[in-house]
Amino acid sequence: MFITIEGIDGSGKSTQSARLARWLEERTGHATIRTFEPGGSPDGGKLREFLLNSRGLSPMAELLLFLADRAEHVDKVIAPALSAGHNVICERWNESTLAYQSGGHDADISRARALIASCAFPEPDVKLFLDVEPDVAMSRVRSREHGDKFEDEGLSLMLRVAEFYRTLASKGELLRIDCGSLDEDGVFSAIKGAYAWPSR
Amino acid sequence: MFITIEGIDGSGKSTQSARLARWLEERTGHATIRTFEPGGSPDGGKLREFLLNSRGLSPMAELLLFLADRAEHVDKVIAPALSAGHNVICERWNESTLAYQSGGHDADISRARALIASCAFPEPDVKLFLDVEPDVAMSRVRSREHGDKFEDEGLSLMLRVAEFYRTLASKGELLRIDCGSLDEDGVFSAIKGAYAWPSR
Repeated sequence: MFITIEGIDGSGKSTQSARLARWLEERTGHATIRTFEPGGSPDGGKLREFLLNSRGLSPMAELLLFLADRAEHVDKVIAPALSAGHNVICERWNESTLAYQSGGHDADISRARALIASCAFPEPDVKLFLDVEPDVAMSRVRSREHGDKFEDEGLSLMLRVAEFYRTLASKGELLRIDCGSLDEDGVFSAIKGAYAWPSR
Repeated sequence: MFITIEGIDGSGKSTQSARLARWLEERTGHATIRTFEPGGSPDGGKLREFLLNSRGLSPMAELLLFLADRAEHVDKVIAPALSAGHNVICERWNESTLAYQSGGHDADISRARALIASCAFPEPDVKLFLDVEPDVAMSRVRSREHGDKFEDEGLSLMLRVAEFYRTLASKGELLRIDCGSLDEDGVFSAIKGAYAWPSR
């Protein structure tokens, strides 16, 4: 299985990815690889650094760099793991690109979709969206005491991105997990209940 | 006017770009900006370095990085110059990407074309192709006493790329300048005669 987890910064993607991975391994008997974007491939770290430190890049260049990072990530990490019969859980995927580069910034959404389609990346079996209120997520991010380009852009960006994710979910492009006031266990229960997860 | 110059390494693109720029400035009275790819934008230098030093990148990631470099180059250099009424002469453009990434390597040509089309970069008025025999061009490159990733890949790559350029020219996608045994002056005369260049 190929699973992606979307959500704004601080929405709990890493936490839930770790829980889902352990649970799926036990349940399916298949190794479950956790990975993330941007920067999930060996050369991706350099790309991530480049992206997060280049504030003046045009929206189009930024979008293409994220796609380059994804292509490398697919080639070196995701496709080999899927071919080997592993499950793969990836934090952030095409919908992050759409939400942050088009929803959050000014890049043209139809152009972004056309570019993504031309890349022909593997299609996830499930695309989870952890829907957390932006102010809650932001306060978690602040408490981590680090920031990068995107995390610094603040609440207004997060609000736009969250709204964009919700629109995708309403069109059936993401499986929305309403995190509302749920705690970590509650969110994980919601994830388990939201999909007919395979078992051995 | 937006003019691009294509050709394998050592085909004389820089030399002819410089001559054409001087001649066009005199002839049209418009400033003529010379630029190049990859790496023609302020952040492009870092991208060029990254590309030329990353030998293990997947063909798709490489292609997307070249397009990111082009997007940034368009945004910061080419579009502003054209908007200001200048002529722009750019060494290498979409056809380099097709010839090197698809003709020279394994990336899927139709996917590359689809990606390039989705980027909607400005369309050149003239796309020159300096057609020099690969062995002649290679000996010029060797005498420059430096090498980079592409120049190191040698004659077999240059032969494939030259053949790819010729195919594009035969379809009318490039204006072929048959450099044959012409010297620098001869090539420049051929360029002047190959197109109805504007004058004031």
